Amino acid sequence: MYKTMKRIAILGTGSVGQTLASKFVALGYDVLLGTRNVAGKLSDSAKDNYGNPPFKEWHAANKTVKLVTFREAASSAEIIVNATKGADSLEALKMADAKSLKGKILIDVANPLDFSKGMPPILSPELVNSNSLGEEIQKSFPDVKVVKTLNTMWCGLMVNPAMINGGDHNVFICGNDDDAKSIVRDILKSFGWKDGNILDLGGITSARGTEMYLPLWLSIFRASGNGAFNIKIVR
Amino acid sequence: MYKTMKRIAILGTGSVGQTLASKFVALGYDVLLGTRNVAGKLSDSAKDNYGNPPFKEWHAANKTVKLVTFREAASSAEIIVNATKGADSLEALKMADAKSLKGKILIDVANPLDFSKGMPPILSPELVNSNSLGEEIQKSFPDVKVVKTLNTMWCGLMVNPAMINGGDHNVFICGNDDDAKSIVRDILKSFGWKDGNILDLGGITSARGTEMYLPLWLSIFRASGNGAFNIKIVR
Repeated sequence: MYKTMKRIAILGTGSVGQTLASKFVALGYDVLLGTRNVAGKLSDSAKDNYGNPPFKEWHAANKTVKLVTFREAASSAEIIVNATKGADSLEALKMADAKSLKGKILIDVANPLDFSKGMPPILSPELVNSNSLGEEIQKSFPDVKVVKTLNTMWCGLMVNPAMINGGDHNVFICGNDDDAKSIVRDILKSFGWKDGNILDLGGITSARGTEMYLPLWLSIFRASGNGAFNIKIVR
Repeated sequence: MYKTMKRIAILGTGSVGQTLASKFVALGYDVLLGTRNVAGKLSDSAKDNYGNPPFKEWHAANKTVKLVTFREAASSAEIIVNATKGADSLEALKMADAKSLKGKILIDVANPLDFSKGMPPILSPELVNSNSLGEEIQKSFPDVKVVKTLNTMWCGLMVNPAMINGGDHNVFICGNDDDAKSIVRDILKSFGWKDGNILDLGGITSARGTEMYLPLWLSIFRASGNGAFNIKIVR
């Protein structure tokens, strides 16, 4: 059981997936990284859209992380992180397969950003306001325990909250399953999040608010030119 | 000139309009409060949807505030505050009339909440994601200097930031006219906002982010049961 729980699958090989994978390795997890096309990902020499180096450079420095298909990653672990691009997440999860995901915890850190209309991105029109990516995943995979979290900040802060303000700022969790949220809370604490700063917003419907915060995040980022910030709720 | 600048028109007689009106009176302004139907508003004995006492009770205690039509209010002042319900704001501003508003500063503190689908409210579908109320007002009234601000918090905090955390938390301003934003910044400072905590997010397009934050605000409010909170950006 211990061994099973210390294995984690991360879907998505971009900077968010890489950052989370490195942190889980540092915490002693056996990490599987899921991708659409393993051979293609390993041979790709192009920088990504954000100018980051190709995946194979990161992988060369993080050899203990196993790169496998979405399905192999999801079927091998009890806890799965969705770190794919939000606009592609539902397709990626279908490739991971409902059977591989059944009964498991899915930590959804993605935002459904839509760059098709130019900058700044909007949110996918079908996943905003009266819906959200977190909710849509839960509806599409009713046997999965979806927990939305960490999607309100730059990935460097997700795994290292102590980087700013002595770690005193907030992260949100939303989801319908209290046991799953409790396990995710423990993972957040292992990243350095203080228990009192982890704010449970209730069921997965609340994912809406955390995803719709993204346009404000982007505006603050543009105004300051620095993504290493977060919000702290004050009373 | 001084006298003109110390007069302010507030459109909307709900708790936000009342709170702002009281504060402006305390600051020495001549305050006109605009409404659709003056006689109707003064005779109405019903509580509002939030259980607040009827307007006439508040007005009895705030007799220096003149209750007039939207148009009379807008035409009498150089600075106008939109504190109407967001879903009704465009109609209210049309009643105030483009001629009365021309060349003036319009401080928009409203959010386009849509309660027609039940609770929690969504944002008006035509005023979200790739649009916002602030932007739509600016498009509809191109000769008006729209400044979006204060819409990210409970009205009690708008005019009394010192109520929590020693006043150390953030308010945003967005708008296309720098001089108008500078005047609005001074008004915010007169409310007690510290200059460094007033974050200029750029043009009116950024109003989108501040309005889309509302669902997160509502989730945090539901989780805590207390609206006297705000966010502080930490780095």
